[in-house]
Amino acid sequence: MQSPQPDPTAGDESQAVSRRIQRLSLHLTPNHRHLQNDTAQQLGLVECAKAAKLTVDTSSLSNYMRGKHREIQDRVLDYFNKRPELQTPVEILKDDHRELCMKQLVGLVREAGFRPFRYIVDEPAKYFAILEAVGSVDMSLGIKMGVQYSLWGGSVLNLGTKKHKDMYFDGIDNLEYPGCFAMTELHHGSNVQGLQTVATFDPITDEFIIDTPNDGAIKWWIGNAAVHGKFATVFAKLMLPTRDTKGITDMGVHAFIVPIRDLKTHQTLPGIEIQDCGHKVGLNGVDNGALRFRSVRIPRDNLLNRFGDVSRDGKYTSSLPSINKRFAATLGELVGGRVGLAYSSVSVLKVAATIAIRYSLLRQQFGPSKQPEVSILDYQSQQHKLMPMLASTYAFHFATSHLVEKYSEMKKSHDEQLVGDIHSLSAGLKAYVTAYTAKSLSICREACGGHGYASVNRFGSLRNDHDIFQTFEGDNTVLLQQVLNKSHSLRPRLEFSILFYDLEFFRG
Amino acid sequence: MQSPQPDPTAGDESQAVSRRIQRLSLHLTPNHRHLQNDTAQQLGLVECAKAAKLTVDTSSLSNYMRGKHREIQDRVLDYFNKRPELQTPVEILKDDHRELCMKQLVGLVREAGFRPFRYIVDEPAKYFAILEAVGSVDMSLGIKMGVQYSLWGGSVLNLGTKKHKDMYFDGIDNLEYPGCFAMTELHHGSNVQGLQTVATFDPITDEFIIDTPNDGAIKWWIGNAAVHGKFATVFAKLMLPTRDTKGITDMGVHAFIVPIRDLKTHQTLPGIEIQDCGHKVGLNGVDNGALRFRSVRIPRDNLLNRFGDVSRDGKYTSSLPSINKRFAATLGELVGGRVGLAYSSVSVLKVAATIAIRYSLLRQQFGPSKQPEVSILDYQSQQHKLMPMLASTYAFHFATSHLVEKYSEMKKSHDEQLVGDIHSLSAGLKAYVTAYTAKSLSICREACGGHGYASVNRFGSLRNDHDIFQTFEGDNTVLLQQVLNKSHSLRPRLEFSILFYDLEFFRG
Repeated sequence: MQSPQPDPTAGDESQAVSRRIQRLSLHLTPNHRHLQNDTAQQLGLVECAKAAKLTVDTSSLSNYMRGKHREIQDRVLDYFNKRPELQTPVEILKDDHRELCMKQLVGLVREAGFRPFRYIVDEPAKYFAILEAVGSVDMSLGIKMGVQYSLWGGSVLNLGTKKHKDMYFDGIDNLEYPGCFAMTELHHGSNVQGLQTVATFDPITDEFIIDTPNDGAIKWWIGNAAVHGKFATVFAKLMLPTRDTKGITDMGVHAFIVPIRDLKTHQTLPGIEIQDCGHKVGLNGVDNGALRFRSVRIPRDNLLNRFGDVSRDGKYTSSLPSINKRFAATLGELVGGRVGLAYSSVSVLKVAATIAIRYSLLRQQFGPSKQPEVSILDYQSQQHKLMPMLASTYAFHFATSHLVEKYSEMKKSHDEQLVGDIHSLSAGLKAYVTAYTAKSLSICREACGGHGYASVNRFGSLRNDHDIFQTFEGDNTVLLQQVLNKSHSLRPRLEFSILFYDLEFFRG
Repeated sequence: MQSPQPDPTAGDESQAVSRRIQRLSLHLTPNHRHLQNDTAQQLGLVECAKAAKLTVDTSSLSNYMRGKHREIQDRVLDYFNKRPELQTPVEILKDDHRELCMKQLVGLVREAGFRPFRYIVDEPAKYFAILEAVGSVDMSLGIKMGVQYSLWGGSVLNLGTKKHKDMYFDGIDNLEYPGCFAMTELHHGSNVQGLQTVATFDPITDEFIIDTPNDGAIKWWIGNAAVHGKFATVFAKLMLPTRDTKGITDMGVHAFIVPIRDLKTHQTLPGIEIQDCGHKVGLNGVDNGALRFRSVRIPRDNLLNRFGDVSRDGKYTSSLPSINKRFAATLGELVGGRVGLAYSSVSVLKVAATIAIRYSLLRQQFGPSKQPEVSILDYQSQQHKLMPMLASTYAFHFATSHLVEKYSEMKKSHDEQLVGDIHSLSAGLKAYVTAYTAKSLSICREACGGHGYASVNRFGSLRNDHDIFQTFEGDNTVLLQQVLNKSHSLRPRLEFSILFYDLEFFRG
């Protein structure tokens, strides 16, 4: 079979193009009848309609959009373009995909020399730029990288203290210590305060005993757990022995570093039980697993003790006055993952909208008799599907770039109001953008008809991989309720910050 | 790891259940303040609120819903339940899936003794009942069966005459003649009248010469073509030699039976080129391929000649006066596929809504302190997602059952107005129901959170398989425009039939 030739029904190419421009201009040329002349002048509509042709300096636009991190993104893409054996094929079994994904990450870090972990605290915008680039190679790789650096690594840096950084930074950075973020349990996802895993302090041996009290408390959906992880940051209720009648006190949820596999043999360590969470709708390059702890002992030093600590003699100390304050501070440090998801979701939307719009320009169907058929992008029904999506993609790009900028500021200043604003803005934008992208992926597939259904055209894997963006790092329905709560709590005090106006604007 | 135990946080089971019923009753008990007492009486609201408990005779309901075809559906499911080796695993490669799907169909027909083809003209409701049952085993199997019996077989029965039925019925019925329905081309999907494949009559040899004039005219997405098909019904412009100056006349699109593989050796026949359309977003049990014809000669008898025929001396005869009338009659006979899709889409919705609602009853998250957590179905946000969907599922069940009934009537009476009504009703319902189901599948996945993302819980494969229901057998956007056209054409004559009121009702 020969390679496809230009469609003979298209007739003279330039004729078709000129007709398309003419049709589009009907939509671009404003209808002046309902406008006062001076209004039209004010809006610049007359000038706009006069313009014969829209010329875009694509290089300037690209520079403007991708900003100062364009170069590092190009280097990431160059690396994978030169390594065809590291590119994910259209059809791949889960187990092969997991190994390939790990190879991609190892290649990125050890061969190409990118060290995303080094930017996670001081230059988050750069970290997110790398995340966007690797996510466009394979979304599983983006999530695998996020699990390693943002979740596992981020929990060590943000919830731990110097001793943890000294001990783990290099291993996390160079992937000798692949790790997990073990928060979610089988029975508790959104309700993090309801976690049931316990970490009981044993003052005799100076250890914590990590235990899974029932099957509902098994850590579930834990990335890096099924195959590659050596460590896990385990969220558990800290139980301290006391001399009162109860004998023990629940100090609330804290984070602990728990080794799960032997560093040399990769054998699962005693007391740890690991199961595979199996095949997922998407992101099968990420090895999600289930972790059960049977009285696993870890040194007291493995408590990530930035917001609360236990002394050798079992005394609890914290700079924060209550369980709720400590819980809020702990979760507050994890907001980066949500910022990254909102930002990455826009990247997915960019890819999908580009594919759908390009195809709609090329695909022709129906038309006046004895003339070339009409480009489907010239149909209003197709424009209604894709043009607001294109506009939203730009809007979300700037909204999430702004979020990343403010988040970077927050990581430097630790300003309390900014922390609160970032929490709400990231919750709202993550929920709104990921829901919009998820819907758009289905619209794009449908807008491209049968050819949108070919795996090679990517809508299927994009939708399957992206789908869970609506659920992890905070279920969208729950996040929107948090935003509502926050805005209600602010209203009486008339303290809406400028960020909230931003949010309102982007929703409007 | 032990098998999951009841959640210890659930406390006393009966207490949780009673609290749930109490909460739900808040939604069921009407607020009487805004109602006149007699209105409330009229509506029976007071009686409803008094009812302590809703009891449902599930067996009667099931009989009522599944009607007289319940028994044959149960037999289909029994067969596959007893054949674990014929059940589709969660993860399967395309090529294995295609072979498994063919084995499933062969097992159904040759081992279990179901003969769906025998019902396709005289008892379509029974055919659709079998289709629903096999679709719930694996949607690929439903489509594979539809390609064989409704598309390939249906084109022979509905567009051919007695000679074709005599020659092909048994082979289609017993799967010795797997076949294709080769309508869509690379450049023409919705615009069927724009097809470019030609069938030129050769009066010397008494043959048609089937030819693909350019790459855009390659038959594309043809089910059964990549691996299993022996024949194809090929839609092509019938070209007749004439004695005028043009020398040849285009008689419009007709259907021809073209052998594509050797019946014994399964080798591709001379002049036929077959390519694999590759991995798809879903339905990978169906082997879609591309067909190119290089001057393939077939006997004149292979023209499916119910609506137009060519005599030995090259004269064209038809009971219908124009190309447009013949084209409409030809496509009109293919409406059964669209009826089947609308009906099958509701089956998918039934499965998805059932899974999501059952899970939402069992899953608990958040709640008052020191009490069992709340079933997520007790949250209004979850109810808003799932309860209108449940109601719509019932409505669509009755709407599409009605459609099947009217379609069966039409196949018997050939009443002209009924043909027109079925065309519009099937177009509208197919577009509306498949779009609703597609959206609902995403809502169900999201409503079930992380566990909805496990492949074993089916939302992924249901969505991926069902997705193309919005495109094939008529792109939804195009179909809705056809419905609009029809209703506009009827309005001036005030001839809305009762069917249109039905349609309006279900949309309301």
